[in-house]
Amino acid sequence: MNEVILELCNRLVPQAYITQGVQARATHEHVIKQLIEHRKLPQEGWDDQTIELLLNELAVMDSNNFPGNCGVGERESRFASSLVARRHYRLGHGIGRSGDITTVQPKAAGSSILMKITNSMAMDVIKLTGIKSVKNCFVVPVATGMALVLCMLTLKLKRPKAKYVLWPRIDQKSCFKSIITAGLEPIIIENVLEGDELRTDMAAISEKIQELGTESILCIMSTNSCFAPRAPDRLEEISTVCQEHAIPHIVNNAYGLQSTKCTHLLQQAARVGRVDAFVQSLDKNFMVPVGGAIIAGFDKNFINEIGKTYPGRASAAPSVDLFITLLSLGASGYQQLLDQRKEMFAYLASALEACACKFGERKLNTKNNPISQGITLSLPDDPNGDQTTEIGSMLFTRFVSGTRVIAPGKDTTVNGYTFKNFGSHSNMYPYAYLTAAAAIGMSKNDVDLFINRLEKVLLKSKSCSNKLETNGREQES
Amino acid sequence: MNEVILELCNRLVPQAYITQGVQARATHEHVIKQLIEHRKLPQEGWDDQTIELLLNELAVMDSNNFPGNCGVGERESRFASSLVARRHYRLGHGIGRSGDITTVQPKAAGSSILMKITNSMAMDVIKLTGIKSVKNCFVVPVATGMALVLCMLTLKLKRPKAKYVLWPRIDQKSCFKSIITAGLEPIIIENVLEGDELRTDMAAISEKIQELGTESILCIMSTNSCFAPRAPDRLEEISTVCQEHAIPHIVNNAYGLQSTKCTHLLQQAARVGRVDAFVQSLDKNFMVPVGGAIIAGFDKNFINEIGKTYPGRASAAPSVDLFITLLSLGASGYQQLLDQRKEMFAYLASALEACACKFGERKLNTKNNPISQGITLSLPDDPNGDQTTEIGSMLFTRFVSGTRVIAPGKDTTVNGYTFKNFGSHSNMYPYAYLTAAAAIGMSKNDVDLFINRLEKVLLKSKSCSNKLETNGREQES
Amino acid sequence: MNEVILELCNRLVPQAYITQGVQARATHEHVIKQLIEHRKLPQEGWDDQTIELLLNELAVMDSNNFPGNCGVGERESRFASSLVARRHYRLGHGIGRSGDITTVQPKAAGSSILMKITNSMAMDVIKLTGIKSVKNCFVVPVATGMALVLCMLTLKLKRPKAKYVLWPRIDQKSCFKSIITAGLEPIIIENVLEGDELRTDMAAISEKIQELGTESILCIMSTNSCFAPRAPDRLEEISTVCQEHAIPHIVNNAYGLQSTKCTHLLQQAARVGRVDAFVQSLDKNFMVPVGGAIIAGFDKNFINEIGKTYPGRASAAPSVDLFITLLSLGASGYQQLLDQRKEMFAYLASALEACACKFGERKLNTKNNPISQGITLSLPDDPNGDQTTEIGSMLFTRFVSGTRVIAPGKDTTVNGYTFKNFGSHSNMYPYAYLTAAAAIGMSKNDVDLFINRLEKVLLKSKSCSNKLETNGREQES
Amino acid sequence: MNEVILELCNRLVPQAYITQGVQARATHEHVIKQLIEHRKLPQEGWDDQTIELLLNELAVMDSNNFPGNCGVGERESRFASSLVARRHYRLGHGIGRSGDITTVQPKAAGSSILMKITNSMAMDVIKLTGIKSVKNCFVVPVATGMALVLCMLTLKLKRPKAKYVLWPRIDQKSCFKSIITAGLEPIIIENVLEGDELRTDMAAISEKIQELGTESILCIMSTNSCFAPRAPDRLEEISTVCQEHAIPHIVNNAYGLQSTKCTHLLQQAARVGRVDAFVQSLDKNFMVPVGGAIIAGFDKNFINEIGKTYPGRASAAPSVDLFITLLSLGASGYQQLLDQRKEMFAYLASALEACACKFGERKLNTKNNPISQGITLSLPDDPNGDQTTEIGSMLFTRFVSGTRVIAPGKDTTVNGYTFKNFGSHSNMYPYAYLTAAAAIGMSKNDVDLFINRLEKVLLKSKSCSNKLETNGREQES
Repeated sequence: MNEVILELCNRLVPQAYITQGVQARATHEHVIKQLIEHRKLPQEGWDDQTIELLLNELAVMDSNNFPGNCGVGERESRFASSLVARRHYRLGHGIGRSGDITTVQPKAAGSSILMKITNSMAMDVIKLTGIKSVKNCFVVPVATGMALVLCMLTLKLKRPKAKYVLWPRIDQKSCFKSIITAGLEPIIIENVLEGDELRTDMAAISEKIQELGTESILCIMSTNSCFAPRAPDRLEEISTVCQEHAIPHIVNNAYGLQSTKCTHLLQQAARVGRVDAFVQSLDKNFMVPVGGAIIAGFDKNFINEIGKTYPGRASAAPSVDLFITLLSLGASGYQQLLDQRKEMFAYLASALEACACKFGERKLNTKNNPISQGITLSLPDDPNGDQTTEIGSMLFTRFVSGTRVIAPGKDTTVNGYTFKNFGSHSNMYPYAYLTAAAAIGMSKNDVDLFINRLEKVLLKSKSCSNKLETNGREQES
Repeated sequence: MNEVILELCNRLVPQAYITQGVQARATHEHVIKQLIEHRKLPQEGWDDQTIELLLNELAVMDSNNFPGNCGVGERESRFASSLVARRHYRLGHGIGRSGDITTVQPKAAGSSILMKITNSMAMDVIKLTGIKSVKNCFVVPVATGMALVLCMLTLKLKRPKAKYVLWPRIDQKSCFKSIITAGLEPIIIENVLEGDELRTDMAAISEKIQELGTESILCIMSTNSCFAPRAPDRLEEISTVCQEHAIPHIVNNAYGLQSTKCTHLLQQAARVGRVDAFVQSLDKNFMVPVGGAIIAGFDKNFINEIGKTYPGRASAAPSVDLFITLLSLGASGYQQLLDQRKEMFAYLASALEACACKFGERKLNTKNNPISQGITLSLPDDPNGDQTTEIGSMLFTRFVSGTRVIAPGKDTTVNGYTFKNFGSHSNMYPYAYLTAAAAIGMSKNDVDLFINRLEKVLLKSKSCSNKLETNGREQES
Repeated sequence: MNEVILELCNRLVPQAYITQGVQARATHEHVIKQLIEHRKLPQEGWDDQTIELLLNELAVMDSNNFPGNCGVGERESRFASSLVARRHYRLGHGIGRSGDITTVQPKAAGSSILMKITNSMAMDVIKLTGIKSVKNCFVVPVATGMALVLCMLTLKLKRPKAKYVLWPRIDQKSCFKSIITAGLEPIIIENVLEGDELRTDMAAISEKIQELGTESILCIMSTNSCFAPRAPDRLEEISTVCQEHAIPHIVNNAYGLQSTKCTHLLQQAARVGRVDAFVQSLDKNFMVPVGGAIIAGFDKNFINEIGKTYPGRASAAPSVDLFITLLSLGASGYQQLLDQRKEMFAYLASALEACACKFGERKLNTKNNPISQGITLSLPDDPNGDQTTEIGSMLFTRFVSGTRVIAPGKDTTVNGYTFKNFGSHSNMYPYAYLTAAAAIGMSKNDVDLFINRLEKVLLKSKSCSNKLETNGREQES
Repeated sequence: MNEVILELCNRLVPQAYITQGVQARATHEHVIKQLIEHRKLPQEGWDDQTIELLLNELAVMDSNNFPGNCGVGERESRFASSLVARRHYRLGHGIGRSGDITTVQPKAAGSSILMKITNSMAMDVIKLTGIKSVKNCFVVPVATGMALVLCMLTLKLKRPKAKYVLWPRIDQKSCFKSIITAGLEPIIIENVLEGDELRTDMAAISEKIQELGTESILCIMSTNSCFAPRAPDRLEEISTVCQEHAIPHIVNNAYGLQSTKCTHLLQQAARVGRVDAFVQSLDKNFMVPVGGAIIAGFDKNFINEIGKTYPGRASAAPSVDLFITLLSLGASGYQQLLDQRKEMFAYLASALEACACKFGERKLNTKNNPISQGITLSLPDDPNGDQTTEIGSMLFTRFVSGTRVIAPGKDTTVNGYTFKNFGSHSNMYPYAYLTAAAAIGMSKNDVDLFINRLEKVLLKSKSCSNKLETNGREQES
């Protein structure tokens, strides 16, 4: 309501009450003004009312919501279903233009403002997590793997003759597939075992560079956040090598923003060497639905170039989700989530340790992995690991989601490449094991329930490790 | 509510009333059962209540909503904001798995069912529009251009040595960019002028195939729906050529589903020749927000292969939007929208004709284009076309969105390729012109407002064609 | 967003696009300004977006939504559940103050404005229906019967010695109970039969006035909308009598606003005689949930006095529902509903006539009732009417709601008063019959389904009228 | 989804995943079953998803949502606006029938079940607060004052000759007005001063009974929760007197449920004497919007009789709000709110004490009032109290809502009765004072902000107590 309208309200309600309302409105507008002016993640989170007020204001600025608009184009952002209109706050034009996913659309000023502010807040939050020298980033409505494809395709345009991607092995399909999908050839760098931990084989990387020649290598794709017993890659050393040989370096930082260890590693890597882009998942770091990623980097131009490779407009949904979530949390809310995660990591560690101990197992010593942890699983008489992996199913049927149980012995072929013991990041990890992660949003209750159920399952597996459980979930007592 | 609960309701409310409610419930369940059983687009649309009931039921089946679930993985689909949870009906796990965007996720049975049904209904609706022999399709949460990239990257895996894409010129950036982004080299086939219409130069295509050799050509990318005065490509002839030379054929069918002419063309092309995949926009054909596409084809396996190239899970948002929209419309509702569009096309045609006539212009005779139409614009004393293109701005400031005004004379460079007279699909189209489209959802009121405002603008432009309007929008009388 | 914010948006998006958005916003604000300024029902309905924008703006002006507000009173309109907050648009303070339900609250400027505008639009819509000389009205969040209690209690304060209410019999419990609840004594005026129709016995009224004396009569409570075969009361004659004897006159106009015949009757009654207040149901006239009424009248002060008798603040829910509904419909939308209802009345009449004819029954000639209609039911061998009334149950189990089947012979006692043949408005109506109404919002499909099912039921009843159907609903073929 | 549908899901998604979903669903159904079976407030609160699932299930059972229903009555619960339908979860039939607000409706099994469960949970929550011997209660969609009217009108039907209501003075308009509106004559019992506290004058009550005679007294209306310095009435003594003289006793327990002191008082009163009904506000005790009350009592039949006096169906909105809120909180959530309130009361007490001390004032010693507290205000040179009451306005403009500032000297006339020093519950309270309450939902932040602003205001008032602040709100530093 503008001032003229508020003036008219005085005819209905005494001035003094209107004045109060006007001041309240001014407070809402003040935080909105701050946001539009500075595009910073606000320190304190907003209430839902203010967030929705802003979303509604932005929707008003999109042409599909103009009263009296007539659309005679092929794409006018009409809605056939009011349920759909409502869930998107009537923002239908998506983000970006055919030329560039980060530019504004004439037909959608509101959506464009939302996109710009979201990208700006995303950069702020990346800095908050510790990557202080980040220079540019944008939200892209594709998953991490596809975002990595975009990064590689952009590099490919600049280095048309390069065809290899050096890839320290990480047994997660989508990052491997991203190389294949980009039409490139992965050069798998097997990890080396250090104690219980699997770490980057820097020597092998150097050898491969030597062997293939700098020109033929499109980039090294390293991984920052990963499952134990693998550790984050030796990012500083890789980025140093990349700089020395002028080889681009892409970091898969899927859920690394939530750990200061990971972000510190990235920040250091950028300081001492070369990192062209790093990619993180929206859902894994910000508790929004699956389907978006942030592509970020330390060179403004290169990130802009990636933005220009996405052909066509794109879904605004992940941006809207991040926009709402970041405004709702504020810097302090997000920081609190990060702090809680750290606490939960320690809590999970000691709980796992105690549980392992009780069953004659031990916690793997993977001190460099700040998110995922593992314990050994040593079932007698389980030569091919079937009973061991059954533990995973038993946990699943007991409503424990997210554990991974790995028993050596299985080969897996992905796009024609065969991986020995796929899942363990290694051809010959010495133990069978189970991992669990302390990810953002985890509660103490999650840990307690997990340990409780794990103990029941271990008890059962250990006592009757020669017959498989086949029939679903037991009643919890 | 199950039967035990309903039985208990009898203690609160007389049996007879409960019986009525149970029967009503059974009716809802019956339509849901039909849907799950047959995965067909229902003939009649559902009311919002039934749609939301089903969405809520599906959400219950996703692990993030399990009461008592404990999540110890990296991705547990937690929601930080209840606004976000609500707008996604608490479905947070996205669709697909790292290996394949069309497979089910263990953690998300509900989302997986939704995805499967949506893809199945999408196939149904493609058949309904006239492409009866379609064999497979899936919704992909990327825009049309990016979906074309996926198609080409998949072909690239199968034809690693091919690097050219034969591309009958269509002046729309994202389809051109899709070739570049895929790391391929576009071979531009200029259109030929037939009367007012721009049509595929079949001879040039044959020559190029001769010249480059079949092996080096990844595919021909043709375009079905496009702006006048370009006509849809000669799909039958192209597909025949493709079959003869064993060259893959990808059709950009962006908004072609809404026209029986376009779908007939595609159906015929598949019958007489080779069409590997055709891609259509969700928003342009189904009035949902920007950001999704359907990749479809006549060979089940090839479409499955494309599904396997998307690395990682993907956003469910476009699938959910299509799911809601198709259920809400039903086959009869969608058919009605198609029929209305056809009527509007005819209505727009006669209105444009009359308007053109009034101002000494004429409607372009582009009889093969069933969606977009144009009229000539001949302003005197406008050597470089500035006053002519100003007409577009004047319409824009008068809340007319979607017109395109083209005056020859401007070159545009996209990714290093220079296009003469970009926008006109031709190096030397003989007229300046304005186009408007009759797209799905257009109303009679849209046409009337458009013509009314167009006439005002033409009146102004023609009378004072030597001074540019600079100051925004006039008041409508 | 205010101008300063919009100015800042220019940094993110080009001025021209912002300008468009600003103009669109101005259009929304314009209609809001018109509403606040003139408090008139808008001619054209608003879209949901504008309605929700305004509701959100109003909520911002209520103290419970003030950022930084601290509440140290007993009633601060906090919300324990966000579901509840959301469904009330965060408006929690209700309407009115302890002294007067129509006054503004210091803590809730937004709710107060909403209440004032709703009451003002309600008056507008009453005029639109034909009661042009209405002078005052307000929405009260109680059902019609309770609203009648408030009217009578207000009269009682002014006429403390009066204790009788003259009440032309209408067999609907809540209006009778309203007299009892108000602590008054009903004087039942039996109707007289004129042809098939039951009409007000004016002679009996005059006699009773004579007998009891003017002073002892609190008011006459007449009824305007009613079930056939009763006709609306002879309002003109009653109001004339009331004026002559200075007896207050309250009209139960429950669903009378939807019929021009009823509103004409009321308007005439007010012109020629005395009508102190007339009460109408919100849900029956405006398709909102049950629970609100409008108390209206031709004397501003008396209506204000009624407003002052409601002790305490009251629920805003019915006002919010009416506010949304009236804005959504606009005058033209409401007029259209009225017109459709009239058509449906005629359509139902001819369908009932044909159906009656087919089964040897006849349509009751109740030409003065513009909403409800009836047909005779003459089952042979049904001395106590059981089989006849069974027809109602059979229709109910076939998902026909709202019919009334009346067979003479049953006495009913309400609050100590015994009514012969309760339901038929008469001690001795000559026929058994079934009624159906053409109420606002009825569709042609409603009529068709009804007649179809009625015929099936009649067929069954007539053929086997000597055994009762007991087991629920049959399958519709 | 029923079992047949779930079986069909297996065709889309592996059995194991479906099984998980089915188990999750069973958990939801289990809590729903428990609720329907036992109608108890659940111990733990439900999540929003389960609440909305149940609301949607209930809506399915109302006839207006029956697929294929045809409505031919006057009231078919159609919705004109989808916004309205949505906010009421498509429940439109209200609660109750014309005969009785607590009975079920044939057309609305779902709404009826909701109403029954809500009333049952309401009784549970009353017991939880400490009134263990309550026997019956129901939610009525009117404010506390109007609910008191209903109680008195019901008594009036039973005691037609009684006309007086003995009313220990409480300076809150709506309870006084409730007597007037009910057509009764209030007999005001002035309070007596004990220390700083105003307490019931039992002697005066006995005298009045003597004077007026038992037969002529309809009831005593006492007050349990009230503003300091008044204490809750001496309920035990009043109820003893009532029992002795067979005089009905109605207790205004507006916000008394939130204090164990108040509920203990009521419970004791019922144990030792006579309490016919006690009425509490929904919004003041349960943080829902204004507009509903619970009428409760210790005699099942009498409460049923009150339910029968409400003529007509009634709004379901307050019942739905309470239903959602109670399910959302659960017994433990509500208990937690009660505990927090108690803590806040103590916290506010010490903060007020300290503040008073600082400014040479003192906290009133009102040890019997467990909710509201006061401090003296002694401004020099303020003979008519204007500067003192200005303190209230100054707080209001500083976004402090809910304080009451009372300075003696003003008379107020309500419905013809003049009250000396209205607001202070006494003709001659010795001090000017300010009160604040610790009501349910108050946070520590509320108290801190309040004290902070109060100190600023007192500083200003005390320093310049001879000129009035006129110009609105100052900026908070």
